[in-house]
Amino acid sequence: MMEKPKVYTQNYFLTAGESNAEGRMPLTLVAERIIEVATEHANVLGIGYAALIQHNIGWVLSRMSIEMYRYPTINETYTFETWIESYNRMFSNRNFRITDGDGNVIGYARTVWVAMNFETRTLADISAFDRDSFPTDDTECPIERTPRLRTPAEAEADKSSYTFRYCDLDFNRHVNTIRYLDLILNHWSLDHYDTHVANRFDILFHRECHYGQTVDLLVSDDGDSALCAINAGDQTAIAAAIRWGLWKPE
Amino acid sequence: MMEKPKVYTQNYFLTAGESNAEGRMPLTLVAERIIEVATEHANVLGIGYAALIQHNIGWVLSRMSIEMYRYPTINETYTFETWIESYNRMFSNRNFRITDGDGNVIGYARTVWVAMNFETRTLADISAFDRDSFPTDDTECPIERTPRLRTPAEAEADKSSYTFRYCDLDFNRHVNTIRYLDLILNHWSLDHYDTHVANRFDILFHRECHYGQTVDLLVSDDGDSALCAINAGDQTAIAAAIRWGLWKPE
Repeated sequence: MMEKPKVYTQNYFLTAGESNAEGRMPLTLVAERIIEVATEHANVLGIGYAALIQHNIGWVLSRMSIEMYRYPTINETYTFETWIESYNRMFSNRNFRITDGDGNVIGYARTVWVAMNFETRTLADISAFDRDSFPTDDTECPIERTPRLRTPAEAEADKSSYTFRYCDLDFNRHVNTIRYLDLILNHWSLDHYDTHVANRFDILFHRECHYGQTVDLLVSDDGDSALCAINAGDQTAIAAAIRWGLWKPE
Repeated sequence: MMEKPKVYTQNYFLTAGESNAEGRMPLTLVAERIIEVATEHANVLGIGYAALIQHNIGWVLSRMSIEMYRYPTINETYTFETWIESYNRMFSNRNFRITDGDGNVIGYARTVWVAMNFETRTLADISAFDRDSFPTDDTECPIERTPRLRTPAEAEADKSSYTFRYCDLDFNRHVNTIRYLDLILNHWSLDHYDTHVANRFDILFHRECHYGQTVDLLVSDDGDSALCAINAGDQTAIAAAIRWGLWKPE
């Protein structure tokens, strides 16, 4: 029988091809790694895709917050550690610590997952799962929980529209999580990213978006932080917030 | 001193989050893995980003052809092997074999790389590099070389436009290779991909595209195969071809 480690660790190497225009790890790749190591840990714990899909259940990311003190640079190694902080009937809280090759902590992340029954489109009761498959760990994650976020009012926001296409989709036939981040982050210019960096990114997934759907992106940015919403008609599908720092390459 | 293996091998696992709407490995991820293992092999051979950037030189992908007999499915393991087939002053020909967890060959790929001097914007002479760093291997790659591709005439093609944004960029501040594939593959609908699969994909990178640039996508599709071009003004930046097969999920 496989061991069920409380903390799951994965090492990575940032290739040139993965890097952004500033030669750093893109925020979108941080989010990809978060989802990847969460998936791998769930698989090891026996609560992954293969086990749950037999019951028509799958994990759906509900909230994510990322704080990065420094983004890895090209050819740097980095490590993601993940563990379950807590869970209840509705939510599983899974945290992450990101360290560089020298063992320095360079970031933390918090995620909240729900178990969706794809047949009934209702939430599955997580507390009914085998307790051994949820070994909670008390490693510290010293960043704030994902807050409630208000939607920027149209009067104060920049507004643009986007239609989701084939490559935006995931295996559930909804828009891939990372594509929401692309859509939001593409609001700002190359010049902006040459002088600013996202120190913290919060995102709440309220409603799934679909192939061919046209959404509005609303962004209100006061220079220090930005409030974003992806609206489908008069409903908010995605809410996000960014706290900007000044970009100081070493 | 590090060994310099003629064939470099990397194992992967296809997570649910990486899969496309058909629950398979996306063609874009095949291309990502090609670039990733090429980069890793070059690093091991001492001709990677870190070594070359000291001379203001970097590898630039010039052509790529992919043939897939079967795309991995969710939770499947797969392996990429890569080796240098040959090189001359101008070009390095690097091939790939993709196998599934049972060792069955499920695809091959061919790539052609040039070494660009970023300062002078001219090609570096590859044959001046250390010969030991180019250990050619004669593993078979039984797919055709990337052919010359004609640009579809506007009269016979569907035309749409796209403006490149921040998340489309790579560390060279040009458009990321994968984003050209996204742009091309997004031409077709979800319905199309539910019934068709790309058995072969060829792409030629003629000119780099930039942030804020608006390009035209031209696509001419006769049902069996498609000819595509990304045009910047009256110049073809990217030419591509797709050979369609019928999608038969097992």
